Amino acid sequence: MPKRPSHSMGMAESAVQMAHAEGASNGASGINWLDRWLLGRIVERAGRPPVAMTLWDGDDVYCPAEAIKGRIRFCDRGALWSSILNPEVGFGDCYSAGRIVIEGDFVTVLREVFRSIDRASTQRFKRDLLGRIPKAARNTRAGSQKHIEYHYDLGNDFYRLWLDERMVYTCAYFETAAVTLEQAQLAKMDLVCRKVALEPGMRVIEAGCGWGSLALHMAEHYGVEVRAFNLSAEQVEFARERAKSAGLEGRVEFIQDDYRNITGVCDAFVSVGMLEHVGPDNYETLADVIHRSLARDGQGLIHSVGRSLPTPPSAWLEKRIFPGSYPPSLREMMSIFEPHQLSIIDVENLRLHYAKTLMEWLQRFENNVDKIRQMYDDNFVRAWRLYLGGCAAGFASSSTQLYQVVFARPEHNTIPMTRGHLHTTTQPTRWKLD
Amino acid sequence: MPKRPSHSMGMAESAVQMAHAEGASNGASGINWLDRWLLGRIVERAGRPPVAMTLWDGDDVYCPAEAIKGRIRFCDRGALWSSILNPEVGFGDCYSAGRIVIEGDFVTVLREVFRSIDRASTQRFKRDLLGRIPKAARNTRAGSQKHIEYHYDLGNDFYRLWLDERMVYTCAYFETAAVTLEQAQLAKMDLVCRKVALEPGMRVIEAGCGWGSLALHMAEHYGVEVRAFNLSAEQVEFARERAKSAGLEGRVEFIQDDYRNITGVCDAFVSVGMLEHVGPDNYETLADVIHRSLARDGQGLIHSVGRSLPTPPSAWLEKRIFPGSYPPSLREMMSIFEPHQLSIIDVENLRLHYAKTLMEWLQRFENNVDKIRQMYDDNFVRAWRLYLGGCAAGFASSSTQLYQVVFARPEHNTIPMTRGHLHTTTQPTRWKLD
Repeated sequence: MPKRPSHSMGMAESAVQMAHAEGASNGASGINWLDRWLLGRIVERAGRPPVAMTLWDGDDVYCPAEAIKGRIRFCDRGALWSSILNPEVGFGDCYSAGRIVIEGDFVTVLREVFRSIDRASTQRFKRDLLGRIPKAARNTRAGSQKHIEYHYDLGNDFYRLWLDERMVYTCAYFETAAVTLEQAQLAKMDLVCRKVALEPGMRVIEAGCGWGSLALHMAEHYGVEVRAFNLSAEQVEFARERAKSAGLEGRVEFIQDDYRNITGVCDAFVSVGMLEHVGPDNYETLADVIHRSLARDGQGLIHSVGRSLPTPPSAWLEKRIFPGSYPPSLREMMSIFEPHQLSIIDVENLRLHYAKTLMEWLQRFENNVDKIRQMYDDNFVRAWRLYLGGCAAGFASSSTQLYQVVFARPEHNTIPMTRGHLHTTTQPTRWKLD
Repeated sequence: MPKRPSHSMGMAESAVQMAHAEGASNGASGINWLDRWLLGRIVERAGRPPVAMTLWDGDDVYCPAEAIKGRIRFCDRGALWSSILNPEVGFGDCYSAGRIVIEGDFVTVLREVFRSIDRASTQRFKRDLLGRIPKAARNTRAGSQKHIEYHYDLGNDFYRLWLDERMVYTCAYFETAAVTLEQAQLAKMDLVCRKVALEPGMRVIEAGCGWGSLALHMAEHYGVEVRAFNLSAEQVEFARERAKSAGLEGRVEFIQDDYRNITGVCDAFVSVGMLEHVGPDNYETLADVIHRSLARDGQGLIHSVGRSLPTPPSAWLEKRIFPGSYPPSLREMMSIFEPHQLSIIDVENLRLHYAKTLMEWLQRFENNVDKIRQMYDDNFVRAWRLYLGGCAAGFASSSTQLYQVVFARPEHNTIPMTRGHLHTTTQPTRWKLD
């Protein structure tokens, strides 16, 4: 399994590296008024979260009166400057390098910081961002191929260490707090199938199928025929093997291709966790793909990470983990449905379910951290911890949403009239996120 | 009860009136090639619907091969020109005046025409309208007062003739095809209450409360305190009387005021059927009202007629029935939620429920048509028939939608995790619209 190449170092990073060396040589005693002032700027920008902040001497420079949830320690001057000059990438890279340390419950600390940042910036968001569509990464066909390989071809052995047994790499659906991740992923797949009202003999197109779990589940348990598309060679190969073992080859076809090349007609168009990689520039193209694929009384579902407000994606996440990714707002998603007057019939926000899913993944990741460190290195482990924990915190703090949008052709008048059948119980299921 | 003043007649209308007189004097024999050509234009613009079209001699000028669903008859030349020159207002006014006659099942004929128009114009919509926000009526404070009086102060005696016993003038919720309108309105109110998770002692603000049914229902059955706002003097007076009779005066306060003047803090903000009268220009104002009213862990629901695509409202409806009204697309509605980063947690489209509700209202309206004719006149009866039947057809054909949008403060992390409890059964409820 190839190790990730080291990040190439730009000018700003070199400067920070020098500050790092200087900070290190200065030792604890080298802290001066500027260091304290810079940390004060970071505290203010973060909206004064209930989290202590220290410099490399270990003394709290900032410690709010309210019960603190943890502590963030900047281990050298370079880490401080990095976080000021390039807050997202700098902080993320320095954490990954072990030059910023987070003490206390990892997800809780991040969640409190995200909440605090969101509160502090609401007014600024309103003033500056409303109506402006932030620049999103461009996903040309070649770009998409490269971006998908970067993340999803990291190796099935790696993902197997912390995903559920079916290798479902999207938000699960926890009907109660007690169910396992395995059960919750199964429940999510059933929820999706019920939402698009699958019936035996229907034709399904799945755009972005991961390791093939949903496609196989639909074919096996709902008697439908599925054509499933995915750009990742490793995932498609794995999915084809599974279809073969399950004797479902005749009913599920896995196609290694771009969603833009989707062909065929379907009664249900399903896409779970792909839209994040499409980018708003391509929503009208996706609209045309759905329009030419969907039967006249067809319906579909798009499941995607999203935002309450059009917001630039985390620069660090975009750079180090998910190149080309962009979680849209509902407003932005409408560009997929409006061109051909698709009728939105249901939107459900599962953000707390994704927070719980990510916390489960992080737990399994930590349980296997030694193996993962051997496969990659410490930097990789910390980067992925920050990704999984940071995303969990993002969903828990509501800075990120998870939308399941069900849509139908306008001619479709025989959709179920109520939604009770989507559920297994009419009892309130009020579990609380830990 | 005052009769509606006759419509003031503009230049175009005078010209059409002259053509009318001329057509009438020409009689059946006066049909010429131009009349037939004009009707042909109307047929093309309507996308060649499965509905025959005739002129005043009663012969079908257009009768498609497929099984026709009914017939539209233009009774004079003026009605023909009106429908060409000003398709929405002209057609609506001539129907109201009895100069255009619709044969066959009224709602079915209109539904087929709407479907056909929508299909024919999808490509044009895409080219011309996408991204452009159509001009909406301006609802200043004075304008809103006038617009609301025009419709809602027509007289409680009139509305009592065709609404349910509780006088609920919004989309009902039919859990099965067999329930009555009364049961369906009750079910809708309970659905709304469950969606905002009412609990005893909560404070509710209702923006636009009609005759007060929902406010009273919430106070009586969910133990909450309600402040309900409405501009209509007749409705507020009626609602206050009901609160008094029910002994709920201490827990429900009806306030005759504009939503812009809402004061107080609430745990749930509810607005059912008001947004249509707000207009997109004022969505940011509404956002600020919600923001200043809603407690930190509060949630809310907006229930509104809407569109799949930003579309100008029917000019006839806007002019004759609902001045100042504008049904928004989901994209447009986002301007209410984005400014303060409210999280959308649930959207349900009840368009088929509104089609059924309107068909129930139309049936009751027809059952009482003699009384209504006595209260007003023939023109009024036909105008309201066109309004109720046209709206039923709009929802049935999917040219109009009904969105219930549930939103929450971003800090709100204890919302129920699944939606099963919103429903009374987990069985599929597939009733079909007649």
